[in-house]
Amino acid sequence: APSSAPEEVGRHRSLAERVWVTYGREVFDITDFVELHPGGKSKVLLAAGGALEPFWAMYAVHSQAHVLEILQAYKVGELSPEEQSQATQGDPYSGDPPRHPALQVNSLKPFNAEPPAELLTENYLTPNQLFFKRNHLPVPAVDAASYRLQVEGPGGRVLALSLPELKRRFPKHEVTVTLQCAGNRRSEMSRVRQVKGLEWGVAAISTARWGGVRLRDVLAHAGYREEEGEAGEQHVCFEGLDKDLSGVAYGASIPYRTAMGRGADVLLAYEMNGEELPRDHGYPLRVVVPGVVGARNVKWLGRVSVSPEESPSHWQQNDYKGFSPAVDWDTVDFTTAPAIQELPVQSAITDPAPGATVPPGELTVKGYAWSGGGRGVVRVDVSLDGGRTWRVAELTGEEQQPGRAWAWRLWQLTAPVPPGATELDIVCKAVDASYNVQPDTVEPIWNLRGVLSNAWHRVTVTLAED
Amino acid sequence: APSSAPEEVGRHRSLAERVWVTYGREVFDITDFVELHPGGKSKVLLAAGGALEPFWAMYAVHSQAHVLEILQAYKVGELSPEEQSQATQGDPYSGDPPRHPALQVNSLKPFNAEPPAELLTENYLTPNQLFFKRNHLPVPAVDAASYRLQVEGPGGRVLALSLPELKRRFPKHEVTVTLQCAGNRRSEMSRVRQVKGLEWGVAAISTARWGGVRLRDVLAHAGYREEEGEAGEQHVCFEGLDKDLSGVAYGASIPYRTAMGRGADVLLAYEMNGEELPRDHGYPLRVVVPGVVGARNVKWLGRVSVSPEESPSHWQQNDYKGFSPAVDWDTVDFTTAPAIQELPVQSAITDPAPGATVPPGELTVKGYAWSGGGRGVVRVDVSLDGGRTWRVAELTGEEQQPGRAWAWRLWQLTAPVPPGATELDIVCKAVDASYNVQPDTVEPIWNLRGVLSNAWHRVTVTLAED
Repeated sequence: APSSAPEEVGRHRSLAERVWVTYGREVFDITDFVELHPGGKSKVLLAAGGALEPFWAMYAVHSQAHVLEILQAYKVGELSPEEQSQATQGDPYSGDPPRHPALQVNSLKPFNAEPPAELLTENYLTPNQLFFKRNHLPVPAVDAASYRLQVEGPGGRVLALSLPELKRRFPKHEVTVTLQCAGNRRSEMSRVRQVKGLEWGVAAISTARWGGVRLRDVLAHAGYREEEGEAGEQHVCFEGLDKDLSGVAYGASIPYRTAMGRGADVLLAYEMNGEELPRDHGYPLRVVVPGVVGARNVKWLGRVSVSPEESPSHWQQNDYKGFSPAVDWDTVDFTTAPAIQELPVQSAITDPAPGATVPPGELTVKGYAWSGGGRGVVRVDVSLDGGRTWRVAELTGEEQQPGRAWAWRLWQLTAPVPPGATELDIVCKAVDASYNVQPDTVEPIWNLRGVLSNAWHRVTVTLAED
Repeated sequence: APSSAPEEVGRHRSLAERVWVTYGREVFDITDFVELHPGGKSKVLLAAGGALEPFWAMYAVHSQAHVLEILQAYKVGELSPEEQSQATQGDPYSGDPPRHPALQVNSLKPFNAEPPAELLTENYLTPNQLFFKRNHLPVPAVDAASYRLQVEGPGGRVLALSLPELKRRFPKHEVTVTLQCAGNRRSEMSRVRQVKGLEWGVAAISTARWGGVRLRDVLAHAGYREEEGEAGEQHVCFEGLDKDLSGVAYGASIPYRTAMGRGADVLLAYEMNGEELPRDHGYPLRVVVPGVVGARNVKWLGRVSVSPEESPSHWQQNDYKGFSPAVDWDTVDFTTAPAIQELPVQSAITDPAPGATVPPGELTVKGYAWSGGGRGVVRVDVSLDGGRTWRVAELTGEEQQPGRAWAWRLWQLTAPVPPGATELDIVCKAVDASYNVQPDTVEPIWNLRGVLSNAWHRVTVTLAED
């Protein structure tokens, strides 16, 4: 029987010495699996001699039962609890910043958390500390003084712009923008059938006033013209300074027209609600793409380039795409679906909370509504009887320019509680400026990755006795 | 008892002589109603001394039971059948062009008709004669030789452009565009609760290759610049040469940015599928606004202007807007909803027909899918079991440029019929490039005018015995 001490595990880091890894307290010899790893041999070898957890946390594809089953076939021993804690040292997340204790944590490493829903609609602008956090990788420690943004120009020439240069050379532009994670409300999809991903509630969405420079000004300075995008489809690619353990950076891209169109408000932001960008939100510089899924709003921005191809990143090519409910992990072909850019119309109830007991008489329901692509919210319908009858909610918060409505509307409805009711099935649904509406139910939009969860939101409450 | 002859009716044309009208064979003295007419005194007086039908046909608001009830209170006599036919002479629609007999007519005067659904998807481009026709008023007889398009410039100076001048001065631009009536699929909404409007099936949508000049080129020639629209919201207003009996022209407007944005493909079209524009489609010149509801695609274009206000037209201000299912004709306030511009994602089954008997074995289902705002169709899901399970249909037809996908995709699915089934509940639903989806059911999107009917389309068929 092999020794089970972490030192022994650490000696098995190549095919020649055999490849050992740990998961929890269990030790596995995966030498024979290395060539079979769907993500490639080099990726799996990064975990050799240590714990699998930090790697699997980065790639959601591992969170499924059959992956653990495969692993079991290679088990060779177990660590004691003390040995386990020793084995998971050298934590790449040890440099992450402190976070607000009010956040509801969906994953600690990488850090993913949302504010309590009822706090979300207390302010039109979400306080930075409560703004939902969606990190794919450890937060990089970026030194602002030596930071340079690399911008690749049309001929391949690379500009290296310091923060003071960026601020001096380009006009400051401020925009109020709502960001939403593609997985917002995923937990409702998992209740239909389990999906792969973080179990977000309704608060993986937040709004801030962002300050920075316009991406189009920076690209124009680098030599790009607005017309460029018309000759065939082009993409603006972003690379983050956050890297996985093999050194691969987070990356994403947006269509050239999204960046360069007249009225495009895409920012390279250094300010969030009047403060310096917090570390969790991309310090010192991040992309803010109004109207577009959070995943393209690359944080800790390292490099910008223009390409006839979308970003080659895993998160652009093999994640953040929508599929039919008929598609499962055995049949999925990521090349058949477009990368999510503009998000569909969305709304949710933030108050009362599910399962709350409410007094009889009058009830006030609160929530948010938002749509992608600058399409404003024109109406929110609320039902207290599961969708049988509807009332029109009052929209609050800033109304933005048509076609550039980048931020959410908050809403509320005060209505008499139907006499005799013991329970209320509260439902909301929003309509955007293209008169797109939310679908009635979750099941027909279910998808294996649990993204784009925008069915009517339902909250059931109990009435207190009179 | 009054004389019931049409001559007698014709003598009552003012408050002083009293105001008589006919509806069918019945004669009414509506003198006391004139001041009460919600549409204004002057409008109702236009019908004085004659038949109500041509007026009511122009304003859909009259097609409801309570309007007839109000009228009954004023009945004073009846015409004989011969007298009735005499009374409805002087038909303003007598100059309308001939139409193809295959069309399914929803209203003869004004002419509104759609092709049979199964013909619709036989061709990617709809033949002109079968293209759905949606006229609000009589087709005007326009003399192309003396025709002048009036374009109001920034200082109020009006250009008058002949057809040869338009063709000579501006480059010809061709775009394949799908037009859809706001009321397409209204009949499904009426099955939930009666709505006001023409009972369109699924074929108030068609696609053509349009040829003409770009509106932005014409507006630039008149002195407008792209930047104009950024200083506050502006609108491009269109006026048709088709007029109601009081001389009021059909009109509509679109946002300035829709007309002037880079990549804007808004046309002043003089060609349809390579032929001269047919009279029913706006001869000699019409507006084609890709991605936008049919109602803004003004035919028989007379005048273009730019204004800080939307078109004052009835059809812009008090029609073609979406409302909550909670809003009825007693509570509706048209100022509270935005005029429909971009339409939401849509799809429908064109084959098999509802109620058809299909052979066992394999079934092929065909249909169309489209979305507004240049958002392409990324997927169509089809179910043979009422939405319990789904398959992905094959998209056919041209794929257009992202962000400028102005035309529909046709689609088809061939699938085995579930063994033992005696009936199939076929359902389709489409997903557009913003990942917006169609709502599951009609009732929650029901609205008093029956517009924006884009719930899943359902067709039930019977299986032939094996």
